[in-house]
Amino acid sequence: MPLTGNLLIGQRAIPGTRAATHAINPATNQPLEPAYHGGTGEHVAQACALAWAAFDRYREASLEQRANFLETIATQIEALGDELIDRAVAETGLPQARILGERGRTCTQLRTFARVVRSGEWLDARVDNALPDRQPLPRPDLRQRQIALGPVAVFGASNFPLAFSVAGGDTASALAAGCPVVVKAHGAHPGTSELVGQAVARAVAECGLPEGVFSLLYGAGREVGIALVSDPRIKAVGFTGSRSGGIALCQAAQARPEPIPVYAEMSSINPVFLFDAALQARGEALAQSFVASLTQGAGQFCTNPGLVIARQGPALQRFIDSASEHVQQAAAQTMLTPGIFSAYEAGVGALAENAHARLAASGKPQQSPNQCQARVFITQATAFLADPALQAEVFGAASLVVACDNDEQIRQVAEHLEGQLTATLHLDDADLDSARKLLPTLERKAGRILVNGWPTGVEVCDAMVHGGPFPATSDARGTSVGTAAILRFLRPVCYQDFPDALLPEALKHGNPLHLRRLLDGQREA
Amino acid sequence: MPLTGNLLIGQRAIPGTRAATHAINPATNQPLEPAYHGGTGEHVAQACALAWAAFDRYREASLEQRANFLETIATQIEALGDELIDRAVAETGLPQARILGERGRTCTQLRTFARVVRSGEWLDARVDNALPDRQPLPRPDLRQRQIALGPVAVFGASNFPLAFSVAGGDTASALAAGCPVVVKAHGAHPGTSELVGQAVARAVAECGLPEGVFSLLYGAGREVGIALVSDPRIKAVGFTGSRSGGIALCQAAQARPEPIPVYAEMSSINPVFLFDAALQARGEALAQSFVASLTQGAGQFCTNPGLVIARQGPALQRFIDSASEHVQQAAAQTMLTPGIFSAYEAGVGALAENAHARLAASGKPQQSPNQCQARVFITQATAFLADPALQAEVFGAASLVVACDNDEQIRQVAEHLEGQLTATLHLDDADLDSARKLLPTLERKAGRILVNGWPTGVEVCDAMVHGGPFPATSDARGTSVGTAAILRFLRPVCYQDFPDALLPEALKHGNPLHLRRLLDGQREA
Repeated sequence: MPLTGNLLIGQRAIPGTRAATHAINPATNQPLEPAYHGGTGEHVAQACALAWAAFDRYREASLEQRANFLETIATQIEALGDELIDRAVAETGLPQARILGERGRTCTQLRTFARVVRSGEWLDARVDNALPDRQPLPRPDLRQRQIALGPVAVFGASNFPLAFSVAGGDTASALAAGCPVVVKAHGAHPGTSELVGQAVARAVAECGLPEGVFSLLYGAGREVGIALVSDPRIKAVGFTGSRSGGIALCQAAQARPEPIPVYAEMSSINPVFLFDAALQARGEALAQSFVASLTQGAGQFCTNPGLVIARQGPALQRFIDSASEHVQQAAAQTMLTPGIFSAYEAGVGALAENAHARLAASGKPQQSPNQCQARVFITQATAFLADPALQAEVFGAASLVVACDNDEQIRQVAEHLEGQLTATLHLDDADLDSARKLLPTLERKAGRILVNGWPTGVEVCDAMVHGGPFPATSDARGTSVGTAAILRFLRPVCYQDFPDALLPEALKHGNPLHLRRLLDGQREA
Repeated sequence: MPLTGNLLIGQRAIPGTRAATHAINPATNQPLEPAYHGGTGEHVAQACALAWAAFDRYREASLEQRANFLETIATQIEALGDELIDRAVAETGLPQARILGERGRTCTQLRTFARVVRSGEWLDARVDNALPDRQPLPRPDLRQRQIALGPVAVFGASNFPLAFSVAGGDTASALAAGCPVVVKAHGAHPGTSELVGQAVARAVAECGLPEGVFSLLYGAGREVGIALVSDPRIKAVGFTGSRSGGIALCQAAQARPEPIPVYAEMSSINPVFLFDAALQARGEALAQSFVASLTQGAGQFCTNPGLVIARQGPALQRFIDSASEHVQQAAAQTMLTPGIFSAYEAGVGALAENAHARLAASGKPQQSPNQCQARVFITQATAFLADPALQAEVFGAASLVVACDNDEQIRQVAEHLEGQLTATLHLDDADLDSARKLLPTLERKAGRILVNGWPTGVEVCDAMVHGGPFPATSDARGTSVGTAAILRFLRPVCYQDFPDALLPEALKHGNPLHLRRLLDGQREA
């Protein structure tokens, strides 16, 4: 199946008509064929019209049919074989092993959502039987289930060309919820996107679903994205990317005659707190694992540990010295795009020029284009508290160590932080009291809190939260990784005094889906 | 306990310093003592500072303590006795029986949320145990629970001085979730608000909770409300009121450096579809029950049936004739405020002047100030489809009958509707196919769909949805009535590899709260 450069609007492959763009191999700065011409407002409207036409049928497809569809997408992605792997490596500069792992994660994620769909728990079925004899007024029969919000616009992320792109977490959870999806591919990996898009489109056809369940659009700049979010048939948005991009989508969504929810995962520096006893006991080991987390994937993770907070003193100095040695040995790594590399250079440049931050160590120099040279900086808590620029995200392998005078200053720094995806505590038993005091602040600040680990590595499971207060995301009530992600794309509907013949399966009197419904206030066995 | 006119900021009663306003007895247009002076930005800041100071402790109060608090509020409201009833009647013009019923509903609602809190289901506890031997990478121990969003601003509604005001559904569900509440009282019933506020404040003290768990503010105009929504310590908003008021709060919430969710219940005309066989078989009975629902409480319900849709013909004409007779016999009823009465007069005036709407019947004329004279208008589907003004909400006992040529036109009218709180179907067995065809549209348009009933009367139970797509509410993912309302004020937090000593009760290894957790993908028994 050769790459064509075409948009996928339902089952039709259509050439775009806007300016051509090419993927760039970031390791060589060479453009990759074919050309991808951007879509127009008309293409957006066509995709949304198809999605709308598919919505009522797709959202009522049986749980089994929908689960099977998700599994078929996984199978079709696997069937792409080495072509997908090779293209993703070329477009992203990521190592083959990483792409192989990410393909596995993507397919596991789709199959996990198939399990979630089959379980039906997300339907949150509730039944309050009629009480015709209640005084002073009878109670009618009331039943509630969750239904899909409507067609969802998904924006592919640059840093996960598979797991958070065309058939990634947002798409999988939206499809699981019963929402058709229109994807705006990330311009950094259009070929990978097209291959995966073809796989999804084949799954749509194989499963006999209406074609509008899935479309894939390209477009440079923000024209296609804003048109998509502004289309009245789009009812929710999933996005992973920059703070400015996410906020632009939120504003477009709010400016609609009918505002819609935007789930934008945007910006996080993922503070790591090193408590005294732990730092004292194993500062060198912590330094080593810190640098491993910091430099993994050239630091291009939303959960990269960009901030380290600890009490000033010899133990922190040993940690910094040891971390500096490891950083100095870290090879430069190719970043995802020339644009991301430029932004990284600007970010570390600003820190280097900041009068209150000091460079502790740099990684090995670049050997080829767009390579990220790791950096660790140091500042004092008073400076950090005074200068908001010191908590701006630098996407890449850069981190800032904040030295504090005492526990109270550590608490002040924590309280001063913006919303985060993660917060991490390194502690020994003697640190438990200090950690306990900090915990309420961190619960208010972050979606996930870790003990004695590193925030990179986001498990796809039921308990994961990849979300958090603004600006980590635009909506702290959701997670974009893990099975709870499906809940973002649902809304409740209540059916009052419905005859059984009109009730949806989930709410019928005989409970044909065998759900554990909330029945007259009690959970069914 | 006499009325003082004071703001309640935590446990302190403080006189406001802005211009004085008085409640007006709408039955006489006479002002009621005492004077209520509005709060300032400084008062808002004080209440928010107290709420913030209370938040970490209140959100971790035990389930039992929080449930007991809600029950104590109910007891304290009941202990207000006739003083509350008399004041509410004087301020609202509502009959005593209605206020007695609403007090019962308010206290039942608080006790229902106490049951919900104790059940702990809303914690949505999830446990994924560590898999240390998993290949290629081990899985950490991951646990998730829901925590409270933060202090919530609640705006009292004019039309439910008890059940949707100071200790109404928004307050009860926010307190149940673990959120301190700062209420902005509705200017129409400040005395009722003060009495209930004193009851809540007494419950706070009796339960030994931090005082900032509850504050009550007054203020004419939008100054206090906008200041409250803009305060950085407020993390969510509950509102029931006008479309323009709700949208103003949404805009203020979005304009913050950290945007926050707003649950605004705003505008709904609650379409009622009369299918052919039902209309043929029992048009007169339907007309009688329609007018009873339309005129109940002077039509001042969010769920008032403001739109009737049916196929043109002799059966619809009989329904209209019969409804007209009942409307003509309907006594005028005092509305809640002079402002609501003026808005009603303007709304029915606009319909009377609309070239495509025709007055079918008017109720009995006013006998005293601010009385609502019921109205029924008729229009054709083509006119309704062409003129958005015909679907503007007229708050009060006015309804518009839309006569359609055929099923397809009925579907077009349904598809043309804005988002609604409710949609109602009157049908017989012969109508089931027509109803089934319309249902997908109605599921997309409304939060609650009824068969052979009337939308007024909103049960407080697990399965209720009092919500719906914009502009019915600003966030279709929530309900403001029923136990699922608690879910609006929560967000998930994940704990990774936590030692048991640091885990919250809901997630500890021994499951001390005896929750049915989602454990390694299976629901615990």
